[in-house]
Formats: sequence, structure tokens, C-alpha cells
Amino acid sequence: MTGRWVVISTERRKRPSDFRLERHQVTRDAYCPFCPGREDLTPPEVFAYRQSGVRNGPGWELRVVPNKFPALQVEGGLDREGVGMFDRMNGIGAHEVIIETPDHLKTLASMSEGEVERVLSAFRERVRDLRQDHRLRYILLFKNHGGPAGATVEHPHSQLIALPIVPAFVLEEIDGARRHHAQKERCVFCDVVHQELTTGTRVILENADMVAIAPYAPRFPFETWVVPRRHGSRFEEAAQHEYDSLARLLKALLQRVNRALESPSYNLIVHTSPFSEDTTDFYHWHLELMPRLTKVAGFEWGTGLYINPTSPEEAARVLRDVKI
Amino acid sequence: MTGRWVVISTERRKRPSDFRLERHQVTRDAYCPFCPGREDLTPPEVFAYRQSGVRNGPGWELRVVPNKFPALQVEGGLDREGVGMFDRMNGIGAHEVIIETPDHLKTLASMSEGEVERVLSAFRERVRDLRQDHRLRYILLFKNHGGPAGATVEHPHSQLIALPIVPAFVLEEIDGARRHHAQKERCVFCDVVHQELTTGTRVILENADMVAIAPYAPRFPFETWVVPRRHGSRFEEAAQHEYDSLARLLKALLQRVNRALESPSYNLIVHTSPFSEDTTDFYHWHLELMPRLTKVAGFEWGTGLYINPTSPEEAARVLRDVKI
Repeated sequence: MTGRWVVISTERRKRPSDFRLERHQVTRDAYCPFCPGREDLTPPEVFAYRQSGVRNGPGWELRVVPNKFPALQVEGGLDREGVGMFDRMNGIGAHEVIIETPDHLKTLASMSEGEVERVLSAFRERVRDLRQDHRLRYILLFKNHGGPAGATVEHPHSQLIALPIVPAFVLEEIDGARRHHAQKERCVFCDVVHQELTTGTRVILENADMVAIAPYAPRFPFETWVVPRRHGSRFEEAAQHEYDSLARLLKALLQRVNRALESPSYNLIVHTSPFSEDTTDFYHWHLELMPRLTKVAGFEWGTGLYINPTSPEEAARVLRDVKI
Repeated sequence: MTGRWVVISTERRKRPSDFRLERHQVTRDAYCPFCPGREDLTPPEVFAYRQSGVRNGPGWELRVVPNKFPALQVEGGLDREGVGMFDRMNGIGAHEVIIETPDHLKTLASMSEGEVERVLSAFRERVRDLRQDHRLRYILLFKNHGGPAGATVEHPHSQLIALPIVPAFVLEEIDGARRHHAQKERCVFCDVVHQELTTGTRVILENADMVAIAPYAPRFPFETWVVPRRHGSRFEEAAQHEYDSLARLLKALLQRVNRALESPSYNLIVHTSPFSEDTTDFYHWHLELMPRLTKVAGFEWGTGLYINPTSPEEAARVLRDVKI
């Protein structure tokens, strides 16, 4: 999609610093700001699923609150301006936290399939609400699980950042998909899924609606993409049976990742179409899972060139072969 | 250059997890493979400056050796091929380590200006040698200083990776510079230096040939660019007085960074023109220094969108105001 090369360097696998697995273990925290009964420690909720109780009180099953330290602010105008040769605008947007469950010790892997589906439903509801704000062009849904992945609170949560721009990597992916479609009149993601299911060596899991693959040129060891079989450009417009299938596959995938890699920290990112563009024919929403196994950061950050010690075929084989 | 937006989010500065400074302290290591007398622990040297002694023995001032765990291999053909819809080629290239000094405890900040200049000269000599290999398109010169920046050996060293491709971020920068030149017939880096010297608020240090600035849209807190005043597309074709000025400025800059930020880990990257393209008129070589101060990684890695808690004006002011 992006024309990006990666170096698959199995030679470097021998380095002792690679794959020093650090199990991410969640511990009880008496001061956790996301636990039930401490609702006053977060800004007032913007969305919740609750069994009982009142807004901003206990009794909820899932809560969405604005981030207490937001990267972007909801109020104000964009005020785009030139500063000499540079460009600036106000940091308008939304930064919300999806508190996935009242249970501090649960994870996406240990929740029930229904609970995982509830998280996906909350994602969808927030996107449908926020896309009505015409200042916003893109919504990024992501999860940092564990300290090395950037999490600062242990209680299971995801984040949402709504932006007045489309992030660089999303743009690249869309441009690549658009080029492929212009040339072949086919979706590049549909083509990838078709080729992967035909060869099979990089397929990890599949069910009625979803396929999990180790992508051909992964940036990170055990990087995994979860792609819906049915073409669709927007996460928030998937069918209910697709969310159900995604919840089932995601839970199973994370259980395998936890077993094979000793419960690593990870980042999970939803890739979906920007609001501002009609990508219906050529873009295909999907999820990307990146376990944080290697520390090598600066070089990749500085260059966009990734050196990956594990081939995708090996990663897929390991995750397929896990005994559950 | 790249059209990349960053979020300057001074609000997030308040988070206790930002700026938890970790001093990178070098300690003696009886088993260091880069110390004099242990030359047999590295592959045979490909280049050295030495006062005395013989090849691969002690008496050297600087040594360049192949990386013992190379990401790429020198031998063989590229063998480009299609794999269904994907593309692959052999991992041809060079991966070398520049051991900057025999003294385990020195750093670029504590070396003499002459010693820093010797490191830059070794960079130049290796690039001039390797660019004769027509399989190679780009040489990346970089330094990981400290564990959080990706260093696995403490002894002062830099690395060089010669590649059969041009890395993504370099391509983006070149494309941006080309567009600017096509429109204005001026180099975008020359324009940036001119604007920064005029406004002054983001200038950190300058001397006869070099200017250190906090770039307008920095990805990382205290990210610093060192740009030569004279237009030139290739690092390895700079004039001797420019290397001397660069050594002087780099040492002074790192001393200030160490004082202001408690000797942080950092990545230093040389940005220079690919061999395979004539970028003479519009590309401008420079160095990028990225102190590793924040842990937030997954989100940025996954999206290419950077959230930076420190404005470049504040970073420049702090580094300018350091008492040396």
C-alpha cells in the first residue's frame, strides 16, 4: 500500500537484547482513577453503558470520558494562519478515554466476547457522534496496553483522538490504495486478503467475517492485521455480525499472543476512512496490532525504515501453533 | 518540507510521566568489545585512524568495523523479484560500527573538538568508499546514545547502514524540497535558515558555518536541527572548515543539552542526499538530534502523528540560556 520496504533480518534475532520478553502484569491499584466509585476523578462522562446508577456514579459497564490531559481541545475555531513560510492552526479536536470495563484486572483477552463487542460498539457510537463536527477530519481509535506501549494508567482503556487533519500514515495508506484502484479497479486490501488466503503461510486466524494475517512487510515482530472479508471503508459502518466476529477473533488473537509472547505490551490501532474524503471504493478499514517486543526505536523513528528480526511467516506459524 | 503536522500540547507537559529525566551514565565495563586490547571480539576493521600499532591491534584512535549482527549483508546480488502482488530483494548493504574513541568513558560532549571532527571525517571517508558500490542508493549515518535510544553497547560509537533503497522519511523530505524548489527556485532549507535567523526565537547556537535551530514543527521535545549555512546536498562533499565548524557546534550543543536535560539518551542522524538522485539544487544536508525524553511511542509509531509537550520556542530558549 505505501511502497515501504522493511528489512527482515533473522540474523539479528540472535542478539540477546531482542525478545527479552517482559510480561505485562496488571496489579490492583487503590488509587486507580478509572475504577468504580472514583468517577469524580475523571472529567464528566460523554457516553456510558450502565446496568444501574446515575450519570457519573458507579453501576456502569463501560464509560467514555474526556482525557484529563487532552492533546487537543474541543472549544474554539481552527484559526488557520501562515507564520512566514510555516503553517499553524489551533489544536481543535477531541481526546477521550474509553474505560472498557469496571474490572481493573480484566484485559481484552480475558473479557467475554460480549464485553469485547461492547468496547467496539462504544468506539462506533463515539465516531458516529463526533463525525457530525465538521471541523474534524479523522478519528483515531487506539489502545496502548502496558507501560512500554505508552500506557500511563493500568485500568483497561482505549483512547480516541479526533483531529482537524488526517495523520501522515493514514494519508500514505489511502494514497497507495487509491493508486492501486486507479490502475486495477480493485481494492488493494481485498487483493491482499485474497492472496493471503490462497497462499496461507501468513494467515493466523479467520472466521466468518474476519481474517488475521501477518502482513508481508511487517514493521514489527508479530505485527498483525485484522481485515474484514467484506469490503467497507468505514469502521463505524460495519454490520453488527462483523463487530461480533471481530470481537471473537480479537479475543482469540490476543489469547494466542499472550501465550506465545508472555503477555506483552502492545498497541492496537483502528484504521478507518477520514470523514473528509470519499474513499468508498478503494479504502478498507482494518485493525493493526503491534506487540512491543523490541526496544530499537531511535533509528526507526528517525528514518521510517524498519528492521524486523522475525519473518511474517514465522510469526504466523508461531501464533497458529499456540496450544489454547 | 514534508507537510507533516505536529501537535504542540503544552497542556500535557503537566503529566508527571513527561520529563522524568533519566541521566545516561556510562560505567566502566571489563568485557566491553569495543575497548582497546579486545580487537579480536569485533570483525576485522575496514578503516582506522591510528597513532601506532598494526591493523586490528591496539594503538588506534578510531576504528570502523562491520557490525557483528548486521541487518544487511555485503555479499551477493540484489535479485529483485515479485512474490504475487508483493516485492522482495535480497538484504544487500553494509552495516558498520564507528568506534569513536578508545576511551570507554568519553562522549561526543566531552571529547575535544578535534576528536569530534575525527568522527565526522571517518563518516566522510566511509561514505566516499561505499558510494562506489552501485548496488547502494543511500547511506544512513546515525548514533544511538544510551539504552532508551537503542544503544546496546556503551562504548562511544556511531553506526552506518548502506542500503539498496532510499528510506521513506528521506524520500519524503526530498520530495518536499523538490516541490518547494519547483515552485520558487529556492532551497527550502536555505529558506528555513533565513527565516529562523531573521526571527531568532528558535535559534539555539550558530557559528561561521553552522546554525542549530529548534525546527518549527518538532516531533520530539528539544528536537534540534544543525544546518550548514552554505547550500550543499551531500554531507561527504562539505568543506574542511565546515566539518571543523560542525564539530565545534555539535560539542557545544550536546554540552548544553546535557546541562539542561541531565545528560539524556539521544539519537543523532545525518540527513544527506541519496547517491541515486541528483538533488544538487534543492536538497540540503543537515543533522537531526532527538533527545529521548518521552516514552509515548506506540501512538506516534502507528500514525506518524506526533504530540510534543514542549514548544520549539521554549526548547530553544532553555538551551540558549544554559550557563556553561
